[in-house]
Amino acid sequence: MAKHNPPEVRDLPIGIDATGTRTETDSLGSVDVPADRYWGAQTQRSLTHFDIGDDRMPKAVYHAYGYVKKAAVIVNARAARMPEWKADLISRVADEVIAGKLDSEFPLYVWQTGSGTQSNMNVNEVISNRAIQLVGGQLGSKTPVHPNDDVNMGQSSNDTFPTAMHIAAVTAIERHLLPALGRLHDATAVKSRDWTDVVKIGRTHLEDATPLTVGQEWSGYAAQLEDAADHLASTTRGLYRLAMGGTAVGTGLNAPPTFGEDTAKVVAELTGRPFVTAPNKFAAQASLDPLVRVSAALRGVATALFKFANDMRWLGSGPRAGLHELILPANEPGSSIMPGKVNPTQAEAMLMVCVQVLGSDTAVAIGGNEGNFELNAFRPVIISNVLHSIRILADATDHFREFLVEGVQLNRDQLRHNVERSVMMVTALSPVIGYDKASEIAHLAIDDDLPLKEAALRRGVSDETYERIVVPKNLTHAGTADTRA
Amino acid sequence: MAKHNPPEVRDLPIGIDATGTRTETDSLGSVDVPADRYWGAQTQRSLTHFDIGDDRMPKAVYHAYGYVKKAAVIVNARAARMPEWKADLISRVADEVIAGKLDSEFPLYVWQTGSGTQSNMNVNEVISNRAIQLVGGQLGSKTPVHPNDDVNMGQSSNDTFPTAMHIAAVTAIERHLLPALGRLHDATAVKSRDWTDVVKIGRTHLEDATPLTVGQEWSGYAAQLEDAADHLASTTRGLYRLAMGGTAVGTGLNAPPTFGEDTAKVVAELTGRPFVTAPNKFAAQASLDPLVRVSAALRGVATALFKFANDMRWLGSGPRAGLHELILPANEPGSSIMPGKVNPTQAEAMLMVCVQVLGSDTAVAIGGNEGNFELNAFRPVIISNVLHSIRILADATDHFREFLVEGVQLNRDQLRHNVERSVMMVTALSPVIGYDKASEIAHLAIDDDLPLKEAALRRGVSDETYERIVVPKNLTHAGTADTRA
Amino acid sequence: MAKHNPPEVRDLPIGIDATGTRTETDSLGSVDVPADRYWGAQTQRSLTHFDIGDDRMPKAVYHAYGYVKKAAVIVNARAARMPEWKADLISRVADEVIAGKLDSEFPLYVWQTGSGTQSNMNVNEVISNRAIQLVGGQLGSKTPVHPNDDVNMGQSSNDTFPTAMHIAAVTAIERHLLPALGRLHDATAVKSRDWTDVVKIGRTHLEDATPLTVGQEWSGYAAQLEDAADHLASTTRGLYRLAMGGTAVGTGLNAPPTFGEDTAKVVAELTGRPFVTAPNKFAAQASLDPLVRVSAALRGVATALFKFANDMRWLGSGPRAGLHELILPANEPGSSIMPGKVNPTQAEAMLMVCVQVLGSDTAVAIGGNEGNFELNAFRPVIISNVLHSIRILADATDHFREFLVEGVQLNRDQLRHNVERSVMMVTALSPVIGYDKASEIAHLAIDDDLPLKEAALRRGVSDETYERIVVPKNLTHAGTADTRA
Amino acid sequence: MAKHNPPEVRDLPIGIDATGTRTETDSLGSVDVPADRYWGAQTQRSLTHFDIGDDRMPKAVYHAYGYVKKAAVIVNARAARMPEWKADLISRVADEVIAGKLDSEFPLYVWQTGSGTQSNMNVNEVISNRAIQLVGGQLGSKTPVHPNDDVNMGQSSNDTFPTAMHIAAVTAIERHLLPALGRLHDATAVKSRDWTDVVKIGRTHLEDATPLTVGQEWSGYAAQLEDAADHLASTTRGLYRLAMGGTAVGTGLNAPPTFGEDTAKVVAELTGRPFVTAPNKFAAQASLDPLVRVSAALRGVATALFKFANDMRWLGSGPRAGLHELILPANEPGSSIMPGKVNPTQAEAMLMVCVQVLGSDTAVAIGGNEGNFELNAFRPVIISNVLHSIRILADATDHFREFLVEGVQLNRDQLRHNVERSVMMVTALSPVIGYDKASEIAHLAIDDDLPLKEAALRRGVSDETYERIVVPKNLTHAGTADTRA
Repeated sequence: MAKHNPPEVRDLPIGIDATGTRTETDSLGSVDVPADRYWGAQTQRSLTHFDIGDDRMPKAVYHAYGYVKKAAVIVNARAARMPEWKADLISRVADEVIAGKLDSEFPLYVWQTGSGTQSNMNVNEVISNRAIQLVGGQLGSKTPVHPNDDVNMGQSSNDTFPTAMHIAAVTAIERHLLPALGRLHDATAVKSRDWTDVVKIGRTHLEDATPLTVGQEWSGYAAQLEDAADHLASTTRGLYRLAMGGTAVGTGLNAPPTFGEDTAKVVAELTGRPFVTAPNKFAAQASLDPLVRVSAALRGVATALFKFANDMRWLGSGPRAGLHELILPANEPGSSIMPGKVNPTQAEAMLMVCVQVLGSDTAVAIGGNEGNFELNAFRPVIISNVLHSIRILADATDHFREFLVEGVQLNRDQLRHNVERSVMMVTALSPVIGYDKASEIAHLAIDDDLPLKEAALRRGVSDETYERIVVPKNLTHAGTADTRA
Repeated sequence: MAKHNPPEVRDLPIGIDATGTRTETDSLGSVDVPADRYWGAQTQRSLTHFDIGDDRMPKAVYHAYGYVKKAAVIVNARAARMPEWKADLISRVADEVIAGKLDSEFPLYVWQTGSGTQSNMNVNEVISNRAIQLVGGQLGSKTPVHPNDDVNMGQSSNDTFPTAMHIAAVTAIERHLLPALGRLHDATAVKSRDWTDVVKIGRTHLEDATPLTVGQEWSGYAAQLEDAADHLASTTRGLYRLAMGGTAVGTGLNAPPTFGEDTAKVVAELTGRPFVTAPNKFAAQASLDPLVRVSAALRGVATALFKFANDMRWLGSGPRAGLHELILPANEPGSSIMPGKVNPTQAEAMLMVCVQVLGSDTAVAIGGNEGNFELNAFRPVIISNVLHSIRILADATDHFREFLVEGVQLNRDQLRHNVERSVMMVTALSPVIGYDKASEIAHLAIDDDLPLKEAALRRGVSDETYERIVVPKNLTHAGTADTRA
Repeated sequence: MAKHNPPEVRDLPIGIDATGTRTETDSLGSVDVPADRYWGAQTQRSLTHFDIGDDRMPKAVYHAYGYVKKAAVIVNARAARMPEWKADLISRVADEVIAGKLDSEFPLYVWQTGSGTQSNMNVNEVISNRAIQLVGGQLGSKTPVHPNDDVNMGQSSNDTFPTAMHIAAVTAIERHLLPALGRLHDATAVKSRDWTDVVKIGRTHLEDATPLTVGQEWSGYAAQLEDAADHLASTTRGLYRLAMGGTAVGTGLNAPPTFGEDTAKVVAELTGRPFVTAPNKFAAQASLDPLVRVSAALRGVATALFKFANDMRWLGSGPRAGLHELILPANEPGSSIMPGKVNPTQAEAMLMVCVQVLGSDTAVAIGGNEGNFELNAFRPVIISNVLHSIRILADATDHFREFLVEGVQLNRDQLRHNVERSVMMVTALSPVIGYDKASEIAHLAIDDDLPLKEAALRRGVSDETYERIVVPKNLTHAGTADTRA
Repeated sequence: MAKHNPPEVRDLPIGIDATGTRTETDSLGSVDVPADRYWGAQTQRSLTHFDIGDDRMPKAVYHAYGYVKKAAVIVNARAARMPEWKADLISRVADEVIAGKLDSEFPLYVWQTGSGTQSNMNVNEVISNRAIQLVGGQLGSKTPVHPNDDVNMGQSSNDTFPTAMHIAAVTAIERHLLPALGRLHDATAVKSRDWTDVVKIGRTHLEDATPLTVGQEWSGYAAQLEDAADHLASTTRGLYRLAMGGTAVGTGLNAPPTFGEDTAKVVAELTGRPFVTAPNKFAAQASLDPLVRVSAALRGVATALFKFANDMRWLGSGPRAGLHELILPANEPGSSIMPGKVNPTQAEAMLMVCVQVLGSDTAVAIGGNEGNFELNAFRPVIISNVLHSIRILADATDHFREFLVEGVQLNRDQLRHNVERSVMMVTALSPVIGYDKASEIAHLAIDDDLPLKEAALRRGVSDETYERIVVPKNLTHAGTADTRA
């Protein structure tokens, strides 16, 4: 690498004061780009060829790419493959990328090349031109910072794009979704404790069953959430392995031998997360298996949330012709035609979010199958769906907690009424009088619309036995029913 | 309805010249809204409670709602349920909604109440306040145009939201997707005709098979597209049936008896499409089956496109270690690290779009199952996915045509080379010499790497027989091989 | 074709009186097969290489193949490509295949070659040997009926397997599923008529809404079923187009020019269904789009059934802490521990069937995408899923009808009780007193647990107005509420 | 519990020597069952009401139920809730269940009650009658072993069915699938080592890319398999938690307080696997989340296998118009019409299996969402799909290994030919001459169909530089290309 006097770096704000277009070039020739944009020829070509729908590559991918580019130049400079001043310059712009300050310079669509090359080149071009601007060079000249030779040094889209995918997904899950799930879990656990002694009638097959406490029921929601979050957290650790260092096909051509280890270490330092280099780069570039697994874990979170939200809307149904054990917060008028109607809207939003996550997971799984040889070329559809699922799950979890769970109240009259009228507490008699006799009593009660006790007495159960055994609260824990014959 | 002198309607541009907030009210109380917005209390509540992710209810739903509101007031005025001046006023604002001029006033999220009530109220509130502005009234006063009593007269979200869903989906399919599919079909048919006589080696199981012409192969793509588009068109006709007139639960409470028929007729006139009232409103509001079917038909389009795009990228693979029968247009440099690389990017984008459509269809199908009693409360997730699929399919279809199909060229050398080396043309000998003998010849050719003819001669086929029968072009049509023994 | 004296055909029962093994051959060499089986070398190889799980190619595919083989020899004989006696002989055995008499000779697995070739060869081999047996020949000699040269004459697996798939699916749908759906529809319509005047409280968002009649609610189920069945029927018509005549790659090599038309006509005559030849054989062999569409239509049937079954179990929930508007038949004891419990088991079985159908449809759609060049090699997974869905839907539909719908009864006390306590009938007052005032009344009633009338009177509605307007039955039809102010 | 002299247990073979029918009873009355069957009234009712399709509850569920019943009586006897002789008797029959000796007595369908109660009662009834037979009692008398009071003591279907599901799935995965994956991994790793030095041209986007070794490519397959298997193994550990002890709704009513812990411990001893009691029974019975996660992990295995199988068929494509780098074993003739054709049938079967697994996983995920209150009533559809996926994955994995991977051979001529003609090795020049110059050379080579070297020399690269840098073998590892300028 030729020696230069390091150029002076100016402290210029982001922005290009120009109008009209500027000519940029790539290996296919020259292209006009808007003069006030940092991007170059390849970004512009992509905008022309891929303006499909309105789905843009998520900004989180670019923020993650900032770490990739910064780590690369730090390692390249340490190995004297790049002069310090240039590494510092690129690093400075990478920091702007990481901070989201250049977000508007990343306009590309999800529906582009399946390797993410166009988004990588978008980053390379923007960093190149922003760096050139900072040293007073000519935009589009690729001098002194070339998008390929410098910003992309030792890299390929094939290894850096999945690296950025992993960084972006890990960050979003650990920063947003897991904390939101933790908050919901905690709010749920509070309710479980508050209502630990409130007896209610259980339901299996939607039909009346034996009693439990409301606190027990809610402990189930909390346990599902905890398990789903734990599984997500552990599955997410699969994303700590970064493909970087594999370059074009996994061999590391044009990168130094320890480039993967070294850059992963720098990424770990910069992000504070334990990233390491992927032990097998061929798998890391030809497949997206770790992300498919994370998508499944997100679906697992949706599974737990679906049950929770669904129970909420059913238990809140009514007020007069439903179950109405819960009184849901009235956040808004429910109907444009029915005055006074209150609907379980947070639960519905959550259910729809869960359905969307399941649909997205299907797309991710299909895309995940479709690697060929040294590349899986369904990366953009996978990362956009994964990041979308993370986002809507995290947001919906917080809203569901704030606007439903934290404000939900018990309808104690209804709960008590249901317990009093229950027939299925006959189950407690079963160990004493036998299943068949107990069945008779239950059928008598239901068919003749009798209170359970009356039916039991008519079938020869003594008052003492009944009163000793059929104590609703006792039926909510193993071994507490007094079943001496 | 009390008599008024009709207020004077001013010709005011859209926009409210105010800052800070304005107090709006609904049945739960008062809410501050931005003073420069037309929306009211319920929209504002929804913005607070449902800012989940960044998925907004598609604008097309609101444009469709413009027709709903306009049709309703026209019918209400005809029946003297609303004074003419008020109907005209609302109608005028509805036209602004239809034209997209009020798009920025519809900020709500997909993840909201499952009935779409909040979006309906958003429309009602915006029309109310815009109408009030036009007659010089006080924003938020609901006078003289009340969002519920006037704009929503004879309607419920439960019947109007699915009505708007149908109108929006029909319009998008018929205006955008079907024409795009038609254009791609035609471009494909042109190629099929151009290449009608170019013989190539067929492939089954990816393995060499008997020959066909390139034109024949492309006729298959065209046929798949045509069938998929036809099925989509016919399935879309199921959306012509509108729920409007059913109001809250399908009975039509608070609407006049013929409101459904009358409004459907007006919608048909306004849109130029043959909308009619749904014969059973209970089904029309409690289910979304017609949209689930349309989603499946969109998936069917994706199925045809997936095959086409997939074949394109494989047939274009190479240039030296692939099949390389097709030369795909080089729209952009393909790699950030490998100079000179050209990739099948349009095909990849299309494949990803198809995968997304399949994922969305899964979400739609799940949501479609989940109606309960008089309402399916998974409407927003369904319409947002359906409209998204329509959009990306239409756009990707146009791009695939323009940037791939129209520019693709044949690599005639490769095609000829493959035909010359083919072994599977032995099949043509089979009717004359029998399958078992023909198998022997094929195995000999493959195992000893011989030209087919040489292997045939070694196994006793005469030169004359071989030359008469194994004429590649003749093998591409039934009955044209000269198989006299 | 050489002249023979036609061999004598004996009237032998099915079955081979032999033990041990017999040597059969194919182009790869010789294979031992069980001596008491008709199949040959290729079937035996497949059994060895593909004993994966326990999923066998559905027998319906073989029955359909019987028509294929019969049609082929009829046409071949007419064109003098095969002597009459041989065509008659093969035709006779084909009749045995059609009638299911040789079912046990078709043991192959679903998980085999993606073209279905092994099942085609299984048919060819069995017909060959059975025919040889009938004329006293030597099993395995392929003389005088050769599995490839004779039974497969003018055919390839590539065109006949999809032909058999279409015939099998059409037959199963038209013979089993559509009639079952018709029966359920009719039983549902009977209930709808029986209960046409029974008023109940509607539910939207699971929450109490305005009233409708039970008959109206059930008319919705009937309408969904009818629409789903109609769509299935019309989509199934896409299967009338048969690939036969395309042979190996769609060109028809080794078949006479009109072989497709002629065989389709014969299949139509034999089956009494309007089969025709597919207009484009390249699409017909390279894709399975018509079956993917049918799978989607089956899913559409599941969507309608899911809603119906789900409503049944919810409306039957209780008996004391649920909605309990319906009394479901008690077909069996519901619980191993809770005596007297009755569960909505038919509804649950139906819901699970619907979920299975949705999963299968996903598999079908993915497989449907994966055609390459001249063949889609995911045929077995597609036909096995489609036929499975048809079967379980048809059976579950009949069971659901017989064991649930036909025996379900109304709990009229509960229905009346709900109507009497309803608050949402306030909606009927809304056109007279305005939405805002009506909301006030509703909130008062709910908050203070008042009857609606009392709340209305407290807010100034006159007794006369209330009694005139809030007549539950009148609220169940448009325009019947007496809303003069 | 009354004292008895323990009855004598006879050593009778399985089987009932009777014809006609026998009357059995349950709480709904009496039912005739075949006299030669052990099952009772509830099983018979289920056979009548649920003969839907031909999908039977997998036998593995019953084998697992054997452990459940055995563990229960051991614990019940220890706590003196059941006399020793009765526990021993039931335990003996449970051993017969575990060993599969009573398989034919478990005929029920998958499509039954969603809790699995009918299968639990099937087990209870069969054990009851078999035990009665062994002590010379009267079949159907429920004496001295009652199906509910004894065999089901301390249990509900609601806790034992998911317990059996977990045991069955764990066993199948650990005994069959994981070992099969291990074997395939090892066979793949052997190939990777054998071919560690064979250079080939890599492919990204299906297009020619830079070289790698065949061993490297195969190391990617091995790594994917290993990761997928590891993830499956770790996810399967979630199934060690058993619901047993929760009884009807999770509270443990009618079970002693430590019944869950105690029975889990016994199950662990009996199976040699580390089962423990589920920490939250409400979650364990109301959800099936751990199985949904395992289903996703199975899908993850399918994802890795799909890529592997897909690459195999593409790399084996040809022999003359395909990639043909690999020579796949010819296990059978490939075509009924094309003599000598060899197809990648094992790969196709594997791909279809993977598609089926993905479809099943969708069904499992949907069912997993649908728990309500204290029960998820979609258990049968979930366990049948999970066990089916395990089975077909395990079998397909073994077949794919044995009949494809172990026999696959390299086509070294083709590999060498591709490397020699490659253009993308220009990438190695890029660090020295820059990306833009390298691009020029590549385009020149492709456009003019030149060898790369000639194009490089024409563009000014020296012979020495070219020969020093473009050494294919050196390009397959990071840092080994000699890129001094």
